Amino acid sequence: MARAKAEPRQKKDAAAQAPQNASEAPFVIIGGDAAGMSAASKIKREAPEATVIVFEKSPHISYSMCGMPYWIAGEVASKDNLMALTLERARNERDLDVRLHHEVTAIDREAHTVTVKMLETGEEFTQVYAKLVYATGASAAKPPIPGLDLPGVFTLRSLTDAEAIRSFLDENRPRRAVVVGAGYIGLEMVETLRKRGLSVDLVELLPQIMPNMDADMVKPLVGHLREQGVHLHLGAGVRAIVAGDGALDVTVRDAEGNDNVLGVDLVLVSVGVRPNVALASAAGLTIGKSGALAVDSQLRTSDPDIYAAGDCVEYRHIVTGDPAWIPLAPSANKGGRIVGENALGGSAEFPGIAGTAIVKVFDYSLAMTGLTEQAARAHASFGAQGEYVGSATITATDRAGYYPGAAEIRTKLVFDKRDGRLLGGQIVGTAGVNKRIDIVATAMTAKMTLHDVTMLDLSYAPPYSPVYDPILVAAGVGLKDVHQA
Amino acid sequence: MARAKAEPRQKKDAAAQAPQNASEAPFVIIGGDAAGMSAASKIKREAPEATVIVFEKSPHISYSMCGMPYWIAGEVASKDNLMALTLERARNERDLDVRLHHEVTAIDREAHTVTVKMLETGEEFTQVYAKLVYATGASAAKPPIPGLDLPGVFTLRSLTDAEAIRSFLDENRPRRAVVVGAGYIGLEMVETLRKRGLSVDLVELLPQIMPNMDADMVKPLVGHLREQGVHLHLGAGVRAIVAGDGALDVTVRDAEGNDNVLGVDLVLVSVGVRPNVALASAAGLTIGKSGALAVDSQLRTSDPDIYAAGDCVEYRHIVTGDPAWIPLAPSANKGGRIVGENALGGSAEFPGIAGTAIVKVFDYSLAMTGLTEQAARAHASFGAQGEYVGSATITATDRAGYYPGAAEIRTKLVFDKRDGRLLGGQIVGTAGVNKRIDIVATAMTAKMTLHDVTMLDLSYAPPYSPVYDPILVAAGVGLKDVHQA
Repeated sequence: MARAKAEPRQKKDAAAQAPQNASEAPFVIIGGDAAGMSAASKIKREAPEATVIVFEKSPHISYSMCGMPYWIAGEVASKDNLMALTLERARNERDLDVRLHHEVTAIDREAHTVTVKMLETGEEFTQVYAKLVYATGASAAKPPIPGLDLPGVFTLRSLTDAEAIRSFLDENRPRRAVVVGAGYIGLEMVETLRKRGLSVDLVELLPQIMPNMDADMVKPLVGHLREQGVHLHLGAGVRAIVAGDGALDVTVRDAEGNDNVLGVDLVLVSVGVRPNVALASAAGLTIGKSGALAVDSQLRTSDPDIYAAGDCVEYRHIVTGDPAWIPLAPSANKGGRIVGENALGGSAEFPGIAGTAIVKVFDYSLAMTGLTEQAARAHASFGAQGEYVGSATITATDRAGYYPGAAEIRTKLVFDKRDGRLLGGQIVGTAGVNKRIDIVATAMTAKMTLHDVTMLDLSYAPPYSPVYDPILVAAGVGLKDVHQA
Repeated sequence: MARAKAEPRQKKDAAAQAPQNASEAPFVIIGGDAAGMSAASKIKREAPEATVIVFEKSPHISYSMCGMPYWIAGEVASKDNLMALTLERARNERDLDVRLHHEVTAIDREAHTVTVKMLETGEEFTQVYAKLVYATGASAAKPPIPGLDLPGVFTLRSLTDAEAIRSFLDENRPRRAVVVGAGYIGLEMVETLRKRGLSVDLVELLPQIMPNMDADMVKPLVGHLREQGVHLHLGAGVRAIVAGDGALDVTVRDAEGNDNVLGVDLVLVSVGVRPNVALASAAGLTIGKSGALAVDSQLRTSDPDIYAAGDCVEYRHIVTGDPAWIPLAPSANKGGRIVGENALGGSAEFPGIAGTAIVKVFDYSLAMTGLTEQAARAHASFGAQGEYVGSATITATDRAGYYPGAAEIRTKLVFDKRDGRLLGGQIVGTAGVNKRIDIVATAMTAKMTLHDVTMLDLSYAPPYSPVYDPILVAAGVGLKDVHQA
């Protein structure tokens, strides 16, 4: 596979060639989380003489969003554990000029400046930039439900949100909760709230949990959630939240159109996130079809002096080649580094994302990569009716069937029937899911066919795998549907 | 990646074109374990009208050799659990003519016959074949140590061996054991014998355990074995075993040349295996440099009517392209299927092996794929002094460092400094090793470079992985040593 990476020497030369109107201007980063801090750190590592200013509107930089449910649950002892990079280290060790409570309110592309508002005083100032890195991330989506601003109603996106939820749990000792939305955060928070001793109702508008997986793969979770004492409402929507008698009355309309009122103490709304592109949009930067910021393969926006990475951008999807908005931490981090390299004059290519992800839901792990069968069928590349999309789903033990602790896992591979090329995979089970999905992701990235997968030389020992790994078995089953086979 | 697989139609046509002197002759398989039974089953699946005769000299077919230590330990309840395919199913469901206690003693290639000895009666007969599948496996190596035939001295290769060891443990209640050889079987049996309550001394001629891994990677195991009460003798050899006073006196010469006598009740000799090629050699088939049978990429021996697979053959190594003898179950199974397909006239290619393997040693998992650093340095492809071989070794947590249960794992990647191509990997730790090695194996099979690896979109959630997987971190560290980087 091809690689493109600038020589360190080149980078420094290029960095010296800053725009004429900003020859001494610093690198300016909007947003101090994964993508922004990765970009900032990369710039300083490669060009220690550069000035890098990071404007972050919140009181925090670089924290693990994905760890928040576990901190709220009390499984992670201290909030400090969630800090990937402390402010002190960012300032002292990495020599980054990090400004908290600083919101960038406008970008003047012609003047190469940004307008910055100091949130603590309300004052504004103008900052010139040589290159700008746009890393504003995403925000929790707010569905049009009356009552979202009531006390006891939360979203979970920022550390400030997490602090609010944890304080509410600690101080108010709520007993009943409704979680709205059964995606990653919703499912993780259902587990967290159960661990904190609450009775939990989970309301999902779609007829399945985890809408980014195929329905057939997540079915076993319905029973498991019930075993864990979760009241599941599928195909149901929240109509309104009203302050009731010392609590919140949540009106849920079920799949049959009947309304039920749940009296609860806490509501968590987790119906997804939206890319923070208002600032970019106002500056005239091109927004992609997904609604996230468009970037090229070197993560440059439509303005050659503005780079972007993280949850606010759409990256190239390695399976379809199309831009895709799948906001996840690993691609924010990787994208940030690429942006740092290229802001210095490099020409690093970001190969793209596979959408590989995993979520723990009580005893189950749900993992996915690439296209679901449903997504592949909807994509024009695979036939007008998705007729070239094949799938193979098998159930097998995660280790030798006779070895203690062997658990059944369900493995699904999605492929192009014309040539057997792997398009995606999903694995669900109570053991051995973790990292197995990454074998599929790696094979898919390498554009392997099902036949190639059946020939992979994977590790085997009874405590770890059957002699034919479930992935190989699924590939073998799928191969029967490949035209050339 | 290319694939080659015959159309079912072609296969049947080809099957009908049997050699002139054996037009109605059956397919004959020598050896009824993984490779042989895979080949036999594949032939019957694709050509149900074919006659397939399997000659197996032992009383067993298709059992899980790798499961035997766990059955001896009592962790696997019944020996039946180890049977991958019972004799009844092989005969009745798969319609295979399986003959136990039948040893093939000679191959007459010109006449297309084999001489078969019925071990229960001593009688011999001649069987004609259309195509012959040679799948005789390997046998436990017997080092030149006096006393190997004494009661209480065992090797572990066959189910008969396992039965003998288990009976000895159950009936004689031995208290002290010496295990000779610290490879897979030796290490697994050390654990088994400790679980059965024995005091164990482990004697290894080389200065490290697991000689097929780099010494730096297995060092942590020395302390762990000691914690588990194992007396480890590295760089030490067994000089003799003598029947002592109701026990066995084992003379161990240590690294300094001093002899110590250990009085024990049981000795397990596990110093590796040797390919069973005597029969092939006597028939004039080409033997490879490794001492195992040479085959082409379609697993044909030097005789076009004789195919071979499993632990008796050397397969192509996917990293070096050279023939390599690495006898492991997955490639025996895969090779058997390929042989079955090609014996029917197909032209399936076996892409080769990576030597991917994993072994559980008490709380640790040791995993490897491709070339060790040592092996790469010794190979002519990577410079006369191995100067083009690079390696990167890192220690990182298997999941987010703050998540409960996070364990440190050590990851080593071996690569070609000239282009960054991955040559091998090793992972050692107490959690999260399993399947992670298969990501490396898959990337290596796809000929990825370290740069490609750093860009892999792997799954992330705090219970499963840090945001940068250890493999990605190791690749990033290694990249600094790649000339083009």
